Parts: sequence; C-alpha cells; structure tokens
Amino acid sequence: MRIAVDAMGGDRAPDEIVAGALDSCEEPGHELILVGQPDAIRACTAGRKFPAERVEVRPAAGVVGMGESPASSLKRRETSIAVAVQLVRDGEAQAVVSAGNSGAFMAHATLRLATIEGVERPAIAIVVPALAGPRVLLDAGANASCRPEHLVQFAHMGAVYARDVLAIPNPRVALMSIGEEASKGSGLTKAAHRMLSDLGEGLNFVGNVEGDTVFADVADVVVCDGFTGNVFLKTAEGTAEALMEGLRAAITSSLRAKLGAFLIRGALGKFRRLFDYATYGGALLLGVNGICVVGHGRSDARAVKAAISVAKRAVETRVVEEIAASCRAIEAPTRLPESAGAAVGAGAPTGGG
Amino acid sequence: MRIAVDAMGGDRAPDEIVAGALDSCEEPGHELILVGQPDAIRACTAGRKFPAERVEVRPAAGVVGMGESPASSLKRRETSIAVAVQLVRDGEAQAVVSAGNSGAFMAHATLRLATIEGVERPAIAIVVPALAGPRVLLDAGANASCRPEHLVQFAHMGAVYARDVLAIPNPRVALMSIGEEASKGSGLTKAAHRMLSDLGEGLNFVGNVEGDTVFADVADVVVCDGFTGNVFLKTAEGTAEALMEGLRAAITSSLRAKLGAFLIRGALGKFRRLFDYATYGGALLLGVNGICVVGHGRSDARAVKAAISVAKRAVETRVVEEIAASCRAIEAPTRLPESAGAAVGAGAPTGGG
Repeated sequence: MRIAVDAMGGDRAPDEIVAGALDSCEEPGHELILVGQPDAIRACTAGRKFPAERVEVRPAAGVVGMGESPASSLKRRETSIAVAVQLVRDGEAQAVVSAGNSGAFMAHATLRLATIEGVERPAIAIVVPALAGPRVLLDAGANASCRPEHLVQFAHMGAVYARDVLAIPNPRVALMSIGEEASKGSGLTKAAHRMLSDLGEGLNFVGNVEGDTVFADVADVVVCDGFTGNVFLKTAEGTAEALMEGLRAAITSSLRAKLGAFLIRGALGKFRRLFDYATYGGALLLGVNGICVVGHGRSDARAVKAAISVAKRAVETRVVEEIAASCRAIEAPTRLPESAGAAVGAGAPTGGG
Repeated sequence: MRIAVDAMGGDRAPDEIVAGALDSCEEPGHELILVGQPDAIRACTAGRKFPAERVEVRPAAGVVGMGESPASSLKRRETSIAVAVQLVRDGEAQAVVSAGNSGAFMAHATLRLATIEGVERPAIAIVVPALAGPRVLLDAGANASCRPEHLVQFAHMGAVYARDVLAIPNPRVALMSIGEEASKGSGLTKAAHRMLSDLGEGLNFVGNVEGDTVFADVADVVVCDGFTGNVFLKTAEGTAEALMEGLRAAITSSLRAKLGAFLIRGALGKFRRLFDYATYGGALLLGVNGICVVGHGRSDARAVKAAISVAKRAVETRVVEEIAASCRAIEAPTRLPESAGAAVGAGAPTGGG
C-alpha cells in the first residue's frame, strides 16, 4: 500500500508534515510518497532515522496557498496537492493525505477522481469524540447548501464508514436538527427526515439529534448539510478551547490550585487527548473514487501520523468499494444504469479553506 | 416595576421557579406577580421569609405541557404562560419570565404583544460567555428559516441589546458563516453579508465569524438564522457537558488526581460558573412589544433569579423602545409609515420546546 502525502500543505508544513509521515513508518504495512519541493523535504528528513526504502520523494514545484480559491488552484497542475491527487488517479498511490487548502484539495479530488456512481456530492466525514464512543458526522463543510437526497446519500456513506472503519455493527444514523420531533427543523431537515424514514431496513435511521445529543449514546452517524456541520465542528472546537483556557486560568490562580493542578497533570493529559483533534488525525472526503484524508490546517506531526493511519484503515476496509456497493443497492430500483454516471463537477466543494 | 413570573413552567416548576423568584427580592426595585395554581405556589412559599408586600399570586388554572405544540397552546387562555403574557399586554407587568415550553411562550408573546414596527420576526437572543467578555447571539431558535432582511433586523436588535443591556459601546456585529471571506457560506449568508455591508455607519458590521471565533475578541453580536443559532447553542452546551464529564472522570481516576481535584475545587467552581447557563439566566425574545425572558427548561432557582435580573435590566434600559427607534431609523427612508404595521403571525416561532 502506497500513501501520497502532500508535504507542503498546512500551517506547519513541511517540517511537521514530514515528521509525522516518517513517524508513521513505526508501523509496518505501507510506503510513503512525499510530494513537494525536494530540497524542502530533504531538509526535513536530514538527520532523521527512517526506513529509506519505504519513503519516496516526488517533486512538485508549486504550493497552493491557504487563502487561494479552489477554482484558481485547479488550473495549476504543478502544485503538491494536484500531483498528490494525480498519484491516486494513476493508481500509483491508494490514498492521499493533505493538511493544505481543504477547498482546493476537495476540488482536485472531485474533478480528478470523480464521484462514486450514485453519489452526487462528496462530503467531509469527521470523527467526533464522545465518552460513549466515536461518532461520524458528515458533511462537515464540503457543501454549504444541500438537497434532501444529498443527506440520504451522506447517510449511506456515513453508515459504511462507521461500520467498516470504526467497526460499529449496524450503526445508528441520525439527522441533525433543532428538536427531536420529525416536525421540528428547516424545510431541508423535514424533507430529509421523511426520505430517511422511508428507507426502511436499508438503513438504521433513529430520527433527529441536536447539537448536544450528538455526544450522548443515541446515534453513531449524524448527517447534515455542510454549513450546519461546519458550524457544529467549529463550535465544538471553540467551546473546548475556551473551556481549556478558562480551566488553565482557574488552576493557576492560586498557589493551592497550582499544587492541585500539578497533581492532576497526568490525568488531565489523558483527558486532553480524548478531545484533541490530533488524536483523530483527519477527515475523510467520502464519495469520490479514492481515499482522500483532509487534515486539519494546524496539523502537527502527531495529527499527520494519525491521518495516515485513518487512510490505511480506509484502504484496508475498501471504503470506496463498499460505498459504491451501498449506493448502488439503494439506487438500483429507481434508476436506469445508463443514467447513473458520475456527476463530475456537480459536487464542487464550497467550504473549507 | 412589576415582573410576571410563570411559576408553573420548567422542568423544576414550581419549587425552583418560586424559590428563585423569592430570592430575587434580596434586590430592591421590583415587585413580582407569580402566575399559576395558587395552592401549588403557596406550598412553595410556605415557611420562607420574603417581603410579602412585593409578591402577588395571580391564579392560572392550566399549564402548557413541555411537549405541547405552540399552536394548540394558543387556544388555551387559562394557562400560566397565557395569563403571564396577558399581564404585560395589559400593562399590569413590565416584563414576563417563563422557563416553560419556549415555543408556546414565543407564540403567545408574538400574538398577544405583536412585533415592533419594522421587525418582521422576533428572535431569541442569548448571551454567550467568553473570557474576553459576553457576546449576544441571535436568533437562537425562534425562526428555523430566515430571509437575509431578517438577519439585518436581528443585527439592529442585537446591537441595541449589547449596547444598552450589556453596556458595550458601539458593539461590533458579525454574521455567523463557515469562512471569514464574504464569498464563503450559504446563499442566505452571502446575501445578508452584502446587505449588512451596505448599511455603512448605521451599524458596526465587522464581517463573518465562525463557530470558534464567536469566543474570540472579534465581535460582540453574532447574527444567524434560528436553525444555525440553535445548533451553535446546543453544540456549545453539549461540548461543555462532555468536557466536564470527561474532566470529572479524569480527576477521580486515581488517589493522586483526587487529592489534586480537592485542591483545585474552589478555583474550578469559579470556572464552572463562568460557563454555566444559570449565571446568565435566560434569553430575551427581541422584537416584540414587551420584555420576555425565555428561561432554560432546566432552570433552577439561581437561573430564575438571574432571569429576573435580565428582565429588570431590559426594562430599565428601555430595550423595546430603543429597538423600535433603531428599526424605525433604518426603515424610514424606504418604507411608507402606513405599510409598516406589526406583522402579527408572520413571526410564529417554530423552534424551542
């Protein structure tokens, strides 16, 4: 298994990206193609111990800026994102990981790899940590506006991800809304609720959840439009950061508290890791013909290593093929095979950065 | 100043509601009308010390159930919510506080008090705690779907609230979206961004914020549709609860950690209060002709006391009159006075519960 890593993408590229990639070689079972400016990459690998036979450097002259528009990035085929995605398209790599401009990454992935038959829009699937176990939430920002049938497709893709990658048997799928009752919510959620309820045994649909019940033991997969999902993701991150900052201020406010803080340091570290995005590594872009892991822009080495591990699990469990099978099974009765071609471009991502 | 309190509304009614109301009398400057079943209320006041001359009991035979639909509750004029709102309409009270069925409360308030001239939809304004200072966010759930002009009206109402009630001079107003750039977001947010930018000096519009930057020192007022605002509110609550639960588990995991936890207990208490909804008391329903404070369904005595304090500040600072003046100033150039009647019913609330 070969994994292409965009060495130039992310706030801390290339140092932390390359470091995390090399760290991933502590585990067997994969080879790396580090894509980017060879000199910059070699400056990061110099003096480090790693299995050279498992690491290849593939030159890419350009870098997509973090603020660059996805549309303009598509014209530049020489960037590290473009070259890394192309490696998957050409079959040289089985997965691609980038912590760079996520809008550009999604645009390249959608255009070059095309969407899976039966999927109109690719979606970003994130893993939400919760004490009762991890949840999958999608879309976390690929599509700012969605139609109800997109949410149904997200539901199928999320269920496959939860079942195969997270090993949750018969995952419970819920719809994000602003009340538990089917009658609560927007026009989009009410229509999606009807369509999801009508699927019957094809999907273990458990109804609506709200922003707080996502963390309860109610559902394993949560679907929503990309605007709502991105608000959820950023709000959860922002709340956690504000709380940790407040906690830090509180436990350093007196000598007594400082001593207490010293004693709970170890316990607090474990707790932090449970809620730290770096533990989960990256989001999967589901719905395209290839494994694409979208890393957090702030990814450090630990996050990159975790992202590579997510990519490996997705390849091993054949997520793309399983999603294709799941969406084919649903679409088959109502669609003629010849009309079911991949709608390239229809799913052009709008969110991210 | 007389404040009507729905003694029967909320998960912990009537005990905690009545207790919180009586506690509010530790402060001077207001009288209370406790609305509900007299026997139930008297059972709660019995044996308690309070200034009897400042507390009146107003009988109301019925109670709106927490799961009852707002529409069906409107037919029942004998409920504690209906009677309490009617007291404001009749001028017997200057404000009403209820922790009961929020959808029913909003429906009664919108229908009986009518919306302020120039406001098409009332909105729920919440106070979001942040280390840099409190923020106002609206709409937190009254309107699941909004048009861009509604968000502009929310911006004006939120700015008045921040300026007058929270004493923030020239409050910075932002739009919740999924990227800082004007080009990011949904059709609604892009259109609202244009309209807010066009207001010029009428409003201190600072652009987009995201779910995490709400907590940063970027904006004092954040506007969004009620679906997005409710997702924000519930996600922040859920994240905070999950973190506190994780923290509790971590600091009781060993004897060493337990000792540390004991030492930081005092500091942790202060930290908890900063992020506890009960500290902030309740949300204001802005845009109706009367001060309505929507309490959290789980309100305890402390939250009720805080909600009454919010109501008092809103009455003292004449929020309704200030919003009317602010919206009149904006609407005047483009609307004829005779077309600007209050659109009763157009703002029927859809969220809450």
